[in-house]
Amino acid sequence: MAKVLVSELVLRDGHQSLIATRMRTEDMLPICASLDSIGFWSLEAWGGATFDACVRYLKEDPWERLKRLRKALPNSRIQMLLRGQNLLGYRHYSDDVVRAFVQKSADNGVDVFRVFDAMNDVRNLRVSIEAVKKSGKHAEGTISYTTSPVHDIPYFVNLAKELEAMGSDTIAIKDMAGLLTPTATYDLVNAITAAVKLPVHLHSHATSGLSAMSFIKAVEAGAAILDTCISPFGEGASHPSTESIVAALAGTEYDTGLDLGKLQEVAAYFREVRKKYWQYESDFTGVDTRVLVNQVPGGMISNLSNQLKEQGALNRMDEVLSEIPRVREDLGFPPLVTPTSQIVGTQAVLNVLTGARYKSVTNEVKNYLLGHYGKAPGTVNESIRALAVGNGEVITCRPADLLEDEMDKLRTEVESLARSEEDVLTYAMFPELAQTFFQERAAGTLKPEPLLEKEAVSAA
Amino acid sequence: MAKVLVSELVLRDGHQSLIATRMRTEDMLPICASLDSIGFWSLEAWGGATFDACVRYLKEDPWERLKRLRKALPNSRIQMLLRGQNLLGYRHYSDDVVRAFVQKSADNGVDVFRVFDAMNDVRNLRVSIEAVKKSGKHAEGTISYTTSPVHDIPYFVNLAKELEAMGSDTIAIKDMAGLLTPTATYDLVNAITAAVKLPVHLHSHATSGLSAMSFIKAVEAGAAILDTCISPFGEGASHPSTESIVAALAGTEYDTGLDLGKLQEVAAYFREVRKKYWQYESDFTGVDTRVLVNQVPGGMISNLSNQLKEQGALNRMDEVLSEIPRVREDLGFPPLVTPTSQIVGTQAVLNVLTGARYKSVTNEVKNYLLGHYGKAPGTVNESIRALAVGNGEVITCRPADLLEDEMDKLRTEVESLARSEEDVLTYAMFPELAQTFFQERAAGTLKPEPLLEKEAVSAA
Ligand SMILES: [Co+2]
Ligand SMILES: [Co+2]
Repeated sequence: MAKVLVSELVLRDGHQSLIATRMRTEDMLPICASLDSIGFWSLEAWGGATFDACVRYLKEDPWERLKRLRKALPNSRIQMLLRGQNLLGYRHYSDDVVRAFVQKSADNGVDVFRVFDAMNDVRNLRVSIEAVKKSGKHAEGTISYTTSPVHDIPYFVNLAKELEAMGSDTIAIKDMAGLLTPTATYDLVNAITAAVKLPVHLHSHATSGLSAMSFIKAVEAGAAILDTCISPFGEGASHPSTESIVAALAGTEYDTGLDLGKLQEVAAYFREVRKKYWQYESDFTGVDTRVLVNQVPGGMISNLSNQLKEQGALNRMDEVLSEIPRVREDLGFPPLVTPTSQIVGTQAVLNVLTGARYKSVTNEVKNYLLGHYGKAPGTVNESIRALAVGNGEVITCRPADLLEDEMDKLRTEVESLARSEEDVLTYAMFPELAQTFFQERAAGTLKPEPLLEKEAVSAA
Repeated sequence: MAKVLVSELVLRDGHQSLIATRMRTEDMLPICASLDSIGFWSLEAWGGATFDACVRYLKEDPWERLKRLRKALPNSRIQMLLRGQNLLGYRHYSDDVVRAFVQKSADNGVDVFRVFDAMNDVRNLRVSIEAVKKSGKHAEGTISYTTSPVHDIPYFVNLAKELEAMGSDTIAIKDMAGLLTPTATYDLVNAITAAVKLPVHLHSHATSGLSAMSFIKAVEAGAAILDTCISPFGEGASHPSTESIVAALAGTEYDTGLDLGKLQEVAAYFREVRKKYWQYESDFTGVDTRVLVNQVPGGMISNLSNQLKEQGALNRMDEVLSEIPRVREDLGFPPLVTPTSQIVGTQAVLNVLTGARYKSVTNEVKNYLLGHYGKAPGTVNESIRALAVGNGEVITCRPADLLEDEMDKLRTEVESLARSEEDVLTYAMFPELAQTFFQERAAGTLKPEPLLEKEAVSAA
């Protein structure tokens, strides 16, 4: 059975990549019956940024969104993205929080958990994958793809084998920066499908305009599932358009079997939805191949540009862009994805602006060098480590091994505001945002960030 | 030598597809030195729509643009698109006009002539291809790609052989509607490269999001040259982004050898240029796969939608979309490209709105049925022909065989205004526009259509 399966990303990564994660549940529900009838392998609908945006901007309870989508998509697998031991937050959580979070996500409707770690340290994935399996759901062990002298095919194949051994049901290749070329994709997918028995699921951002081409080579190499996004939320920083991939494979041995006519209806719907969110469009959403030249992802360059502008040092950009690969090498070549992209970028800016490398070192880099994010993929530069943390104790165990159970403490802390175990977990992810949200909820003052009328602004 | 060559389209098809052909020469010249140094196989820079827009909106002499580009691109082949016996206009010209036009284009700087006919009637290509060869330049015989029961691979292979026999130096496959899928591309290119000795040059619009994928299969099947557009004017209605294709093939046996770093500079330049022309952006520039479902190209749907709106009949769109393939079949399946797309679309609208098919017939359809556009690819519906033109004489010769030489007449007509043979040719292409242009030039009142300031409009 060479038939290729498709995961539709419009409810999560599509709007996260193109309109700052702002799509509201009310704009998802009307099209759910159509989405549900098409026959996608999964509908990705939940993750860290959507959870955050619900609480922070949309004033929606993210658990409520999940429940409503579950009801509206009775025939579909709902998929979520989970940052391993970080869950949806920015720190390592104790194992009891991980277990509680996974169980509640499963209870409320998640079928497929894509679990990844920024460092590809599988110790940071183990507890969440175990929890997914215990809940009876689908665990997708994930490779964070990057390029570096240590990230060769044997490295990724070994990682895939470890993910298989940990009980993964599928293996995802997550190419967040759009680095995968058609040839690299073919070789990687080919090697992984030869080494593990699990279906390979490919996620590759269209940022550099390579992902659709890579998909063609991926299916030829045996990839089983492709991540696509319906065209009005496809391409650029998002993903290959669903209709294009379906059309490209139609009539071949890789035919997805999806109905292009039905997809037109979904596309027509989301074309109108996107217009509502025009205020979140970025200035430029086309192809951006800078990452292929200087190894720095497009999104990171925008952030750096803002950082430098604030300090009146925009003219130092080229130096910073040259410094980033050096800092990354010093840190043992972590993939550049949240949170490592911020860690590397900020230190590179400091190294340039202070005029001496590591004269000033951020706390995040210190923690990184102390092992608190897990094991680096390559070798950390020991003289930089000595310079930055001196005699600080470097841990080599799994970071979460040092954490005590914390659910009871969290429950107590938020007792007066939480109405459910889900509320406690929301508080665990984003303590301050959650408290504000719960207070506003109690006061009946929850109010989403307003959507501006285009005409009104133009006429102003 | 499997190395793949690249033609850059930003100076012609890129801005034609995305900003209504409005790019000015002053925005081309500053980047020409960079473009010239990259090593493209050709730079497409001239064609019917750019010529028209120069005279109509930009108040630039298109011949002057050509001369300035020639000077600014000393190391590059300049390529133009020529509509065979129609040249850059909308009617058939006599052979002496065709010969004069080709010679003057060659004299002023065109190196590569891509010559096509909307009907794929090679008799409409013969005189222009001969004229190109006589001028010592490169003749690219072109296949207008479409799908229909008569447009199978043997049909296109036969066409390629005829183009080779006529003296073409390369064969272009022109997929103006973005219909080519990766598999169809592979099979077509494979069959043509097996049947003719000439290099195959592929042009496929990214409208339906398939073209980059098709390019990968095209080079595997032996395509020699690919048409791409630098990313700020790439994708959507335009073409695969140059940087993406270069990156996709880098390091493979199909490596283009182009420098991705240099291309970043060109991209950065055109990213700023595109902003100047924001008033010509269309509402939606993403992937549009409707053509794959109902056989009607996206651009044609927009035109029809305007036509129907004017007549208060937008609610009849679905009927019109169903009628178009029927009219196309009645006419023997012409490819839908200028002018046949307009001919078929307008008749389909009439057939729906009058309530009876062919109750009213346009003059263009009558002329088409009388053979004045050339031979239809398939069989024309004889009962429709009888209904539309009665006993009118159907010609079967080459349409231009009925035309007398006309250069002398044209020279006389425009004698008082023309300053050169090039002016006479401009007049031949667009008589009314040219006269207005020459009068304004004489009066010193040539003034381009103004570019609006975005801030000014928002603040208004
Ligand atoms: Co993603
Ligand atoms: Co074109």
